[in-house]
Amino acid sequence: MNKNKKVNAAILIIGNEILSGRTQDTNTTTIALWLNSIGVKVQEVRVIPDIENIIIETVNHLRKVNDYVFTTGGIGPTHDDITAQSISKAFNIKYEIHKEAFGILEAYYKPGEFNEGRQKMVWMPENANLILNPTSGAPGFNIENVFCLPGVPSILKSMLGGLKNSIVGGEPILSHTISLRTVESEIANSLTQVQDSNKDVEIGSYPFFQAGKLGVSIVIRSEKQSSINKCSDQILKFVNEMKIKVVER
Amino acid sequence: MNKNKKVNAAILIIGNEILSGRTQDTNTTTIALWLNSIGVKVQEVRVIPDIENIIIETVNHLRKVNDYVFTTGGIGPTHDDITAQSISKAFNIKYEIHKEAFGILEAYYKPGEFNEGRQKMVWMPENANLILNPTSGAPGFNIENVFCLPGVPSILKSMLGGLKNSIVGGEPILSHTISLRTVESEIANSLTQVQDSNKDVEIGSYPFFQAGKLGVSIVIRSEKQSSINKCSDQILKFVNEMKIKVVER
Repeated sequence: MNKNKKVNAAILIIGNEILSGRTQDTNTTTIALWLNSIGVKVQEVRVIPDIENIIIETVNHLRKVNDYVFTTGGIGPTHDDITAQSISKAFNIKYEIHKEAFGILEAYYKPGEFNEGRQKMVWMPENANLILNPTSGAPGFNIENVFCLPGVPSILKSMLGGLKNSIVGGEPILSHTISLRTVESEIANSLTQVQDSNKDVEIGSYPFFQAGKLGVSIVIRSEKQSSINKCSDQILKFVNEMKIKVVER
Repeated sequence: MNKNKKVNAAILIIGNEILSGRTQDTNTTTIALWLNSIGVKVQEVRVIPDIENIIIETVNHLRKVNDYVFTTGGIGPTHDDITAQSISKAFNIKYEIHKEAFGILEAYYKPGEFNEGRQKMVWMPENANLILNPTSGAPGFNIENVFCLPGVPSILKSMLGGLKNSIVGGEPILSHTISLRTVESEIANSLTQVQDSNKDVEIGSYPFFQAGKLGVSIVIRSEKQSSINKCSDQILKFVNEMKIKVVER
């Protein structure tokens, strides 16, 4: 771990089904929570269609301005799975059969089942590093700082653990939540004062409605526990003075 | 409705809570499904943090390359709600108290409850068009082709209906789903042939796992019902020849 460096990532969701509203993306949450835990902050997410030149342009932009890029989707066996080919073009690398991936899938399937459709999944950018798939065999891949994962949430989730050694994070981003029985407008001014005098923390305020009651969750985020504690104390001080009920802290 | 024009939109989700993984975005799906129904195709989604210059740059890019831009989040009363101010700067328009919005909230709250925190919510770009909020009073706003909505999903949902007359869509995008008891690799080649001979439809293939069984949903999308029907017939033809069970059509 590089304790003093901030490490950023972008997530690129590739898939018409998200843009059409047919499928609810959940991979962003999965990847973001995992990256947080290893000290990588997601600074941008984009969702784009299965169109080659858009994938190429977007990947080439994101990989330049982020430490890491994680793509999801488009690495299956059908005609709309064009991520591997597009990434090859983005890096100007040959798109070819990956021998190690071929070996993995040949062993994974029963004899005769490793058909033409499935063989499409071993076409990758030349010399890509494989990201192993403990759920369904077909690996993802990594070129430089770009990591290509599948779109199916359960499969994606199972592949993240194997990536840990490929990602060098900074200090983990810590967070602390204080939930109050109040509305945002009551605490807005006091919260602004706390944020203004604590520039090294990020304070978010999120209204919620739970069990028929309104509330506000205040989320304090920082790499430093001491900064979070100081900020939390200041919030609890004004909350106490205003006689606001603390639901969770 | 403009029957011959393709109408595109971008969705811009503004909020650290989505990037950190704390909150699962669902507004993309809500907005995308609604836009589809009025003939507007979402071509891009971005999630960005609550940082002014990033909001300004992103809005100014997206509004140039899309017919419409829908933002969500950052229009509440707290310090991290900076969307209205950032949009004013993006358009180089004065940020000021919106008299109509002030009147609405003054009437909405009980006497004495329209406090300083709540009054922040009536600061908007000068002459913005209001987007009425039947759920919690505070309106969203619209400047040119940019529509700013709140982040709370239930409130956002309740505001879309009132927007219908402000959006001029093209032909609604129709879709038809055929679900099969098979795996993608079995049908990949046949599906590619159908896509290649039907360039005016968009065919997506999505594996699913339901009630313990694997399946594939094929989604056919087009503005023309006749094109969808032709494509659907071709798919059902090869499915029938391959003796694959149709779960839904």
